[in-house]
Amino acid sequence: METNMMLDPTKTSRVFNFAAGPSALPTPVLQQVQQELLDYKGTGLSIMEMSHRSDLFQEVITQAESDLRDLLGIPEDYAVLFMQGGASLQFSAVALNLMSERAQADYVITGTWSKKAFAEAKRFGTAHAAANTETDRFSYIPPFDDWSLSPDADYVHITPNETIEGVEFSFVPNTGPIPLVADVSSTILSRPLNVGAFGLLYAGAQKNIGPAGLTLVIIRKSLLQAPIQTVPTLLRYDIQSQKNSMLNTPPTFAIYIAGLVFQWLKSLGGLNNIAQINQHKASKLYEFIDQHEFYTNPVRQQDRSWMNVPFTLHQPKLDAQFLAGAEAAGLTNLKGHRSVGGMRASLYNAVSEQAVDALLNYMNDFATQHG
Amino acid sequence: METNMMLDPTKTSRVFNFAAGPSALPTPVLQQVQQELLDYKGTGLSIMEMSHRSDLFQEVITQAESDLRDLLGIPEDYAVLFMQGGASLQFSAVALNLMSERAQADYVITGTWSKKAFAEAKRFGTAHAAANTETDRFSYIPPFDDWSLSPDADYVHITPNETIEGVEFSFVPNTGPIPLVADVSSTILSRPLNVGAFGLLYAGAQKNIGPAGLTLVIIRKSLLQAPIQTVPTLLRYDIQSQKNSMLNTPPTFAIYIAGLVFQWLKSLGGLNNIAQINQHKASKLYEFIDQHEFYTNPVRQQDRSWMNVPFTLHQPKLDAQFLAGAEAAGLTNLKGHRSVGGMRASLYNAVSEQAVDALLNYMNDFATQHG
Repeated sequence: METNMMLDPTKTSRVFNFAAGPSALPTPVLQQVQQELLDYKGTGLSIMEMSHRSDLFQEVITQAESDLRDLLGIPEDYAVLFMQGGASLQFSAVALNLMSERAQADYVITGTWSKKAFAEAKRFGTAHAAANTETDRFSYIPPFDDWSLSPDADYVHITPNETIEGVEFSFVPNTGPIPLVADVSSTILSRPLNVGAFGLLYAGAQKNIGPAGLTLVIIRKSLLQAPIQTVPTLLRYDIQSQKNSMLNTPPTFAIYIAGLVFQWLKSLGGLNNIAQINQHKASKLYEFIDQHEFYTNPVRQQDRSWMNVPFTLHQPKLDAQFLAGAEAAGLTNLKGHRSVGGMRASLYNAVSEQAVDALLNYMNDFATQHG
Repeated sequence: METNMMLDPTKTSRVFNFAAGPSALPTPVLQQVQQELLDYKGTGLSIMEMSHRSDLFQEVITQAESDLRDLLGIPEDYAVLFMQGGASLQFSAVALNLMSERAQADYVITGTWSKKAFAEAKRFGTAHAAANTETDRFSYIPPFDDWSLSPDADYVHITPNETIEGVEFSFVPNTGPIPLVADVSSTILSRPLNVGAFGLLYAGAQKNIGPAGLTLVIIRKSLLQAPIQTVPTLLRYDIQSQKNSMLNTPPTFAIYIAGLVFQWLKSLGGLNNIAQINQHKASKLYEFIDQHEFYTNPVRQQDRSWMNVPFTLHQPKLDAQFLAGAEAAGLTNLKGHRSVGGMRASLYNAVSEQAVDALLNYMNDFATQHG
């Protein structure tokens, strides 16, 4: 267990948190939030007690956008929107905003979340599964050459990382003139991203960005047009962009924390450095799993997620004992998603290499004891 | 200025905050949030780092709902939903969910917010203004007998308190079998509310509930039906209710803070006591304004808001000086909404009587000096 330094004289123990989301946040960020919670910059107010139109909050959101643009290298011709409702509300918003009169879109189904996005899009138009790996239990990313794309689709939708199955794209498909749309909730900021290759990116905050309740949208400005369908005004990208995400009160506190996370990422040297750390963390864990028959990860090697590592024990009857021992060792939230069972270690940016080392030690001991 | 007691040895000064929203939160609530920010109940995790499906968060949301039900006396046959997007997204959701095949609704227009709700509803069906006081600058609530209600409307919509104009209903209209829908963002929890008289209530959190990013919906269960229109799944009341607001990740941290606010309100003796305090605070300020020609409030006496008190100075050229002096005296966020100018003192639950007294002292001094 790591001990953090707080203003509070009482020392608090922080555990290693492998939660899939809401997930670990950087301890230094939480410490700063704690320090200024009742008095933001000497105002005598909490940041959450201020108008979203106040100068101080405008500074917060402007800086957050600017830091995000720096980190991801977001081109000038893209707008950044701070929205609400999670990626799941974007499943609807994407279809509602981007579908043309012919209302037709291609979806690549590589796991639970892309399947959900696909189901929601079908409610608003014709969505077509350009590829689907469900019959293979979503254990790999289908090669681009095998996708059955419609030449006149309004957009192509992918989910570059699937949190439940632990599969991640190792490539960005080239869809030519058809806008590529991606739910990057669980991979954004974990490694560099070629924003210019996408028409629209969206992400729920509660993995690598900040607390649940904030949703980021990054959209090529040429796609900001009045939708064909009647769309709830708050979900309209064109209007949210015109209003700088201030059509109504945005989730100010969540935006403030996201801004601190962006600054923390910059202080670590940006996404090239972060990617090295993340690759190193994930490789260590996958190598360990592959070297021990006691543990199994079902995903094809080149498609394994850096962020979410599902694994099973050789004897599922030991699951409860494994989890209890992990908790006792300060390793928490390792239970796999209820739909797939087993274990899952999520290795988001705020999960340190020490956390992975502690996990490997525990897994090694457990395998030795029960193998 | 009041001084709060923090765990942090450094004393922090908190100012008197008259913001219209996001607005003042109770200092004891913020202190508790601060204290457990990095380690919630000895878990070694922040509450915002936990799964929304974890036992601990389930306790938080269950307790919050239970306390809200106690405070408002919400009947058993009403569901409580924890949503996102603010009241403005509910403008769409109400129309999308409640409009029948004939898609017709009555709106009572008493200020800026009801006007916006009306405009959004018109995008999804036929909305009819049953009453509208705009030509009288929204300076009173139109008497129920003067409303022009349609006998076959799907619902009647009111905004019981208007934050910008400072008008508030002193009665609950009886719309018989037609569901009454109300945006209670700025009046909820300020006084008792007869929930059973309404079909649906909704409220953005950022006044009397908690931080921006959480939206409450209280709906009579008989209205939980599959909508006629194609509604984004996240905005469907029937499905959100079936899923206990866990269709996707809710704004967990905002819900946690709302829960602490509900407990704080219960510790103050509930809404009857709160109403007495609020009436007393508002009366003091209105009486002072009425007694001083230097200040004016334009709202008809019986329709004056307890929560938002707009007022103008006799000489508008003194506005900037008034605001600067107020800031210097620790009285902040008194500037009126940009659409109406002048001043506005919002007196939400977390604004203490001492804050009002300090404001009156300042206003008195200022009037004496410049009158």
